[in-house]
Amino acid sequence: MYPAELLVNLLHSVAFSGSSDWFSLFPIQLPSIQPLFATVAATDTPLVLAGMLLSLVVIYVSSKIGGELCDRINLPPVLGELVAGVVVGISAFDILVFPGTGEDGSGSLIMTLLKLTSTISPEAVTSIFEAQSEVISVLAELGVIILLFEIGLESDLKELLRVGPQATLVAVVGVAVPFALGTTGLILLFHTPLIPAIFAGAALTATSIGITAKVLAEIQQLTSREGQIIIGAAVLDDVLGIIVLAVVASLAREGTVEIGKVVYLIVSAATFLVGAIWVGRLLIPVFESVVEGMKTRGQLLISALVFAFTLAYIANVIQLEAILGSFAAGLILAESQRRRELEEQIIPIADMFVPIFFIVVGARTDVSVLNPFVPENREGLIVASFLVVVAILGKVVTGLAVFGQPGINRLAIGIGMIPRGEVGLVFAAVGSASGVISKSLNAAIVAMVILTTFVAPPFLRLAFTTSSATAEISEEKAE
Amino acid sequence: MYPAELLVNLLHSVAFSGSSDWFSLFPIQLPSIQPLFATVAATDTPLVLAGMLLSLVVIYVSSKIGGELCDRINLPPVLGELVAGVVVGISAFDILVFPGTGEDGSGSLIMTLLKLTSTISPEAVTSIFEAQSEVISVLAELGVIILLFEIGLESDLKELLRVGPQATLVAVVGVAVPFALGTTGLILLFHTPLIPAIFAGAALTATSIGITAKVLAEIQQLTSREGQIIIGAAVLDDVLGIIVLAVVASLAREGTVEIGKVVYLIVSAATFLVGAIWVGRLLIPVFESVVEGMKTRGQLLISALVFAFTLAYIANVIQLEAILGSFAAGLILAESQRRRELEEQIIPIADMFVPIFFIVVGARTDVSVLNPFVPENREGLIVASFLVVVAILGKVVTGLAVFGQPGINRLAIGIGMIPRGEVGLVFAAVGSASGVISKSLNAAIVAMVILTTFVAPPFLRLAFTTSSATAEISEEKAE
Repeated sequence: MYPAELLVNLLHSVAFSGSSDWFSLFPIQLPSIQPLFATVAATDTPLVLAGMLLSLVVIYVSSKIGGELCDRINLPPVLGELVAGVVVGISAFDILVFPGTGEDGSGSLIMTLLKLTSTISPEAVTSIFEAQSEVISVLAELGVIILLFEIGLESDLKELLRVGPQATLVAVVGVAVPFALGTTGLILLFHTPLIPAIFAGAALTATSIGITAKVLAEIQQLTSREGQIIIGAAVLDDVLGIIVLAVVASLAREGTVEIGKVVYLIVSAATFLVGAIWVGRLLIPVFESVVEGMKTRGQLLISALVFAFTLAYIANVIQLEAILGSFAAGLILAESQRRRELEEQIIPIADMFVPIFFIVVGARTDVSVLNPFVPENREGLIVASFLVVVAILGKVVTGLAVFGQPGINRLAIGIGMIPRGEVGLVFAAVGSASGVISKSLNAAIVAMVILTTFVAPPFLRLAFTTSSATAEISEEKAE
Repeated sequence: MYPAELLVNLLHSVAFSGSSDWFSLFPIQLPSIQPLFATVAATDTPLVLAGMLLSLVVIYVSSKIGGELCDRINLPPVLGELVAGVVVGISAFDILVFPGTGEDGSGSLIMTLLKLTSTISPEAVTSIFEAQSEVISVLAELGVIILLFEIGLESDLKELLRVGPQATLVAVVGVAVPFALGTTGLILLFHTPLIPAIFAGAALTATSIGITAKVLAEIQQLTSREGQIIIGAAVLDDVLGIIVLAVVASLAREGTVEIGKVVYLIVSAATFLVGAIWVGRLLIPVFESVVEGMKTRGQLLISALVFAFTLAYIANVIQLEAILGSFAAGLILAESQRRRELEEQIIPIADMFVPIFFIVVGARTDVSVLNPFVPENREGLIVASFLVVVAILGKVVTGLAVFGQPGINRLAIGIGMIPRGEVGLVFAAVGSASGVISKSLNAAIVAMVILTTFVAPPFLRLAFTTSSATAEISEEKAE
């Protein structure tokens, strides 16, 4: 029987539709508990596949509905995906739920549909539910790895160096001020313990390059002087945010703030990023000639994925995070002559994987803690309001740091830095995952991300309208 | 602790690197066996991700080495991927192995590397090994679903109807003759039982459209009259092969040949395919206007994937196979005005997923049964030789069925139909998975696929060279 089972894993989809009768074999075959795990997984794979296909359909349909609705009202589509995730997840319709909160799959609409359309023994439901949730979770992780690879690929180190000192100062101020204000404010005003306060402060730091760039493109300000500084700072911000994330995640892991550890992590993060980029840039000609030498389909994409996944694995192994590796790989390959070609090929892959990440993030977020009619939620809501104010003020002041650029629209730069996105959500997820931040603080961070993303686009448009008026006045004065 | 664990699943990659200490919590937390599965899976997800990243790197590197080497010696790259899979799999280097043959992961080089670079408790190795194998297996399944979607998308119903009766006759003869010869030959000569004989016979039927089309393109014969008939017949062949697969897989599931069941399956397969295509074609304007109406990134790709995954799920649920659904979805969308655009976006996704399928097929194939120095292997080898002869003869005779085309190169058409590929491998995998065919018969089928794919390209080139000479002579005679 065993040689049969080993291939079920592979092509169950083609082999069995509802072979739950195999299930009755378990109690006899099992020598111990471990093989049970294997046998359950192997035998139920066709149903795991069916569950995964249904989950992906739910994820894609909801992400498109959310994204399109947001796009119609001039908000970034990513925001709609997140909200759509909340709608299909544990907060509302329970279509896409994950194990962990006592869920055994019986409340999941996907498992209900699977039960209706297949013959599943009741005891199989939980294991199929958990196996398909595991697969969707890993796909969501691949989604964030590919997202950061694409962000790296869209970044441009040289352009970044050219917009130079201003962008750096904006980025540093935009990381330092919200972090300091947020952390100290939480400790002093809300008596939050140190680690959760640091986590929430860190979640306030990183501007979403994707959202900011998209908004700037929409209002045709991507190539303006202000736009260049915002993009440059947002790129740097992303790098800083990832380093801060690595530091803070490790703090959460250890439970204390060890200066030695922090220094080690900053050094190793910086070394990894700078080292990977330095060595990687030297290896670009090698990469290009390897790709050039290949004649089979997908030579560029597969080579790039091997590079990205290898760096992601290395980053993971040296106590950093997988996403830092894929981001570094993207930054390196952005220097390649084949960047445009690679970007074109990564776009469909990102389109396929990234929505899984945002929908899963939304689906796992229990926003019921933000319901103001429940008395015990009120502290969380007050914290959320505080975080939103700090998030906005902490970025608006960055415009004041710009020097040597007479007539520049400082307000527009500051507002351009407001939207938090992917990285902020990653902070919330990591903090919640490691158990250091409470459900209400997690929800407050998610609310902050949602709200900053909501307010930035209309404000940015307004700031640039005032900008042109101001610019005309100063030009007149100069004459 | 639970709210923490539920997010580990999502972003473990960013949260924990080697948190095997959580493991010690299990014996206390578990009320029963089922939650063990969930807890193991959730807690070890960062290591599952690390294992998956390593596995993907191994899969991509080996597929490219194999593909490129084959391409250099004028063989189809897909053949190289298969052989590369054999090399990294249980037959040779044990780098990529799967649970089922008593493997607990201790023999896997990937698990060894994972153990070297992380802190994993010994008892965690097996569960991580099995969870990451499950994820890779599901990705391989997604690979074959996407492959068949792409093949459907590259097919053209209208063109097929135009090359018309000749192509149909070639396809039918090319399915009937190898199936009849193979099945009866195995029963009469080798006393194979009915079901395995039918399975092996069915595995001889389907021409690989991908390999054939690629070879024809390489020798610039894709648009010749012979090339058109070959492509048309290969497309039909693929459809017939999938119907035969659905029938045979169900036979394997039930264990007997029930005429009623066969008729039901043929009718439901035909109904599904014809019905899906008929209804689907009516819905194309709806699909196009939905896509047209969307403004966010990936609107075409995501809509197409939702369509493909929905049909795959329906096909799975009505006792057919998921790949039949994705193939039908591809055929339908091939009629859309956005076909080219969609093909371009599917290519990178297929490049990413399809190699996982071929490498995993190879890795799971134990070719040691083909070692002629082991006495008990000899029957398998004799069977393999028989299958290869039938596979070649059964397709070469199809050229004789072409009517009303004076001066056509019948030999070239027959040889063009020889290469078996994806579908033949799917048969071997399904037969092996359902336990109806023995390891040696499985290996014989894989050897047949490998050998037919090996011999076709040089033979086809030769046949077309003779062809031009013959064609010139007949043209001279006509003058």
